[in-house]
Amino acid sequence: MNRKTILYIAISADGYIAKPNDDLSFLSMVQQDGEDYGYTDFLKSVDTVIMGRKTYDWIMTQLSEFPHADLDSYIITRSVRTDVGKTKFYTGNLKELVSELKNKPGKNIFVDGGAEIVNELMKENLIDAFIISVIPIFVGSGTRLFNDGRPEQKLEIVRVKRFDTGLVQLHYKPAGND
Amino acid sequence: MNRKTILYIAISADGYIAKPNDDLSFLSMVQQDGEDYGYTDFLKSVDTVIMGRKTYDWIMTQLSEFPHADLDSYIITRSVRTDVGKTKFYTGNLKELVSELKNKPGKNIFVDGGAEIVNELMKENLIDAFIISVIPIFVGSGTRLFNDGRPEQKLEIVRVKRFDTGLVQLHYKPAGND
Repeated sequence: MNRKTILYIAISADGYIAKPNDDLSFLSMVQQDGEDYGYTDFLKSVDTVIMGRKTYDWIMTQLSEFPHADLDSYIITRSVRTDVGKTKFYTGNLKELVSELKNKPGKNIFVDGGAEIVNELMKENLIDAFIISVIPIFVGSGTRLFNDGRPEQKLEIVRVKRFDTGLVQLHYKPAGND
Repeated sequence: MNRKTILYIAISADGYIAKPNDDLSFLSMVQQDGEDYGYTDFLKSVDTVIMGRKTYDWIMTQLSEFPHADLDSYIITRSVRTDVGKTKFYTGNLKELVSELKNKPGKNIFVDGGAEIVNELMKENLIDAFIISVIPIFVGSGTRLFNDGRPEQKLEIVRVKRFDTGLVQLHYKPAGND
């Protein structure tokens, strides 16, 4: 296995990626000048993005330009839509997409959410690394990262890093994978 | 504030305290001779236990004797039951119980689950420290530690400890508390 699919995501300490109504404001509590929690380095290790359509549409309501326009992005959707530059709208089978991408040379593949896509990939054991930044807050309710009904998957911890803001970054990989 | 209520609990990396049917077998993957993840030291710091009735009954199906028989234990229940030694069945208000206990001198108070009691206490911001041992496994489904509908609570990280087995122990306290 050469190219890896990597989930890189932030969650609250109680396991949510957003508060109700897609409210991500809790992420701002760990914003600190000069600290990006390894994100720039991580981005250098990938050339491809997999993202759900809902997450894409939400981002496009917030920003004037797609932040991964320079990468080969696959937006997973059930409705055909015209590609925008390197951003492709993919209506096919997710497992086949990952398989195709891994059979091509390239850098790693950034699994950028949302929860629906993450859980679909996890059901097929298609994520090779999990880099989860735990924000020091219980948000109380909202959208969970992990849904019920995935298979059991034993993990190895690759790295744990604690930052001054209280953010703890957990880096896991499936046990037994190289 | 002198006595603290402390949640000391193990969860899977996807946030479950048990697999379906109260299956806790995943905890055995971190069993290691001579390593108790600080549990003995933690027990020395407490003299009182708060536990839900369902959790208590489940434990009593597994063990011949209640493991906290030597501590002042309060089993939270809606049905009156006869006390057993230092183990009391408490049908009153949970907030009042914590308030009464904190107004008495003593060591810390061990919040020992299950999820229902933990979430009830969290709704009232009645937990002073959270020591959460994250087991390196995604179990996929089961009983979650955190339910929806709690208030937001900002946290400070007190300690992060990584163990050889891959267990990561996160110790949080509510932000602003001493």
